[in-house]
Amino acid sequence: MSDTSRVTAGLVVIGDEILSGRTKDVNIGAVAEFCTDLGIDLTEVRVVADEMDDIVAAVNALRARYTYVFTTGGIGPTHDDITADAIARAFGVDLPINPEARAMLEARWQQTGTEVNEARLRMARIPEGASLIVNAVSAAPGFRIGNVHVMAGVPVIMRAMLEAIAPTLQGGRKVQSVTVKAAVGEGTIGSPLAALQEEFPDVKMGSYPQMGHGRVMTELVLRSHDEARLEQAAGRVRAMVAEAHRKAGVTPPDEAY
Amino acid sequence: MSDTSRVTAGLVVIGDEILSGRTKDVNIGAVAEFCTDLGIDLTEVRVVADEMDDIVAAVNALRARYTYVFTTGGIGPTHDDITADAIARAFGVDLPINPEARAMLEARWQQTGTEVNEARLRMARIPEGASLIVNAVSAAPGFRIGNVHVMAGVPVIMRAMLEAIAPTLQGGRKVQSVTVKAAVGEGTIGSPLAALQEEFPDVKMGSYPQMGHGRVMTELVLRSHDEARLEQAAGRVRAMVAEAHRKAGVTPPDEAY
Repeated sequence: MSDTSRVTAGLVVIGDEILSGRTKDVNIGAVAEFCTDLGIDLTEVRVVADEMDDIVAAVNALRARYTYVFTTGGIGPTHDDITADAIARAFGVDLPINPEARAMLEARWQQTGTEVNEARLRMARIPEGASLIVNAVSAAPGFRIGNVHVMAGVPVIMRAMLEAIAPTLQGGRKVQSVTVKAAVGEGTIGSPLAALQEEFPDVKMGSYPQMGHGRVMTELVLRSHDEARLEQAAGRVRAMVAEAHRKAGVTPPDEAY
Repeated sequence: MSDTSRVTAGLVVIGDEILSGRTKDVNIGAVAEFCTDLGIDLTEVRVVADEMDDIVAAVNALRARYTYVFTTGGIGPTHDDITADAIARAFGVDLPINPEARAMLEARWQQTGTEVNEARLRMARIPEGASLIVNAVSAAPGFRIGNVHVMAGVPVIMRAMLEAIAPTLQGGRKVQSVTVKAAVGEGTIGSPLAALQEEFPDVKMGSYPQMGHGRVMTELVLRSHDEARLEQAAGRVRAMVAEAHRKAGVTPPDEAY
């Protein structure tokens, strides 16, 4: 694509518990919605284990390719939390105790009467040159280095960190979308839809079968940066779907849903 | 790892709707549990858009690296369903109409009075040399070529396809796991846990903070192929956690949960 206003992102989800199926990820969906709202194209997600080489490889691959990279998971106080170590290695920088992060954590620990120990101080280790991602839920900060944003894996903390970084991100032109509902299957409208997609290359047309309505349903989602073209394409798709309904003798989708 | 009995897998989730946040993926968790049950280590997941180059690159990277590759999504009848095209390109083979797949689809269409058309016949296009993954839910088959298993994105169909391929997969030695619950935070037990992890390198110890119990909770999950070592490590971890409870003066976790 030659669209110079396109802002892209990659996400690295870090954690054995996701790959074993023990924990079901919900961060991918949250980051995806967050990006869509800001006009950022989330282009690729990788889920990797708590393994140094795997994290370094994924982060380096994605940070070279996309405007922004987000990571979730692996920034807690235990030995299996190695994301900060991996990011420091990916950027070739040291990982010292950060005085600001330490002060933040110690202030919280004082409030709660929590002992300062070696494990807890792991959370104050921040790669040299990174800035902190402060959030209200957890005193343990994430951090940003280059275009990489390192966040917690716990969903409520991850979402607070997203809110914290939102003002620092540059959004792209926001994609507008129109959904057209059809009371016929994908196979019925596949050919005319493909013809319309060819006619409107600047409007991306997705087709999604809907299960569980007790009858055949398809949602067509049209997306474009150009509102006028989007409306034009949507009108043509609606007409195509109406014709398909007429031919099939089925109820129009507004009544059917 | 020098464990020659290790069987690994990579998963490629294909679909713009996941990356836009419009659809929340549930297939990663289902494939992860499926692999764990069979003793297969799901090692990496990639989510990519409905873009030819992205799919080909992800599939080629993963099929060279892991015992098995699974893909979900993009095998329907519409123009944005390009997974079969991408797999054929990744393997450098043709993508003809497969007579067996066509017969299967036409039999279903005859039952339901569904017209045979160009869009629907897209679903019978199967890469040369692939074998079909037949399932009861959908008449449209997935397929297997080399170590790559191509499945539907609709979760109920995907799961039916997993069941269909299960008997054809070679599982590894099954990993056993033990969970130890602690009524203290990760920071309290981080250091002694790290020491135990060093003492038991063959038992992988994960630490997961638990939110939403109204108090601080941590779950420690120990995994190993060696049951005797696992039990030995679990005993040591339980003793360490009991000591942490005693020091902190908190209720043991069985009562606390």
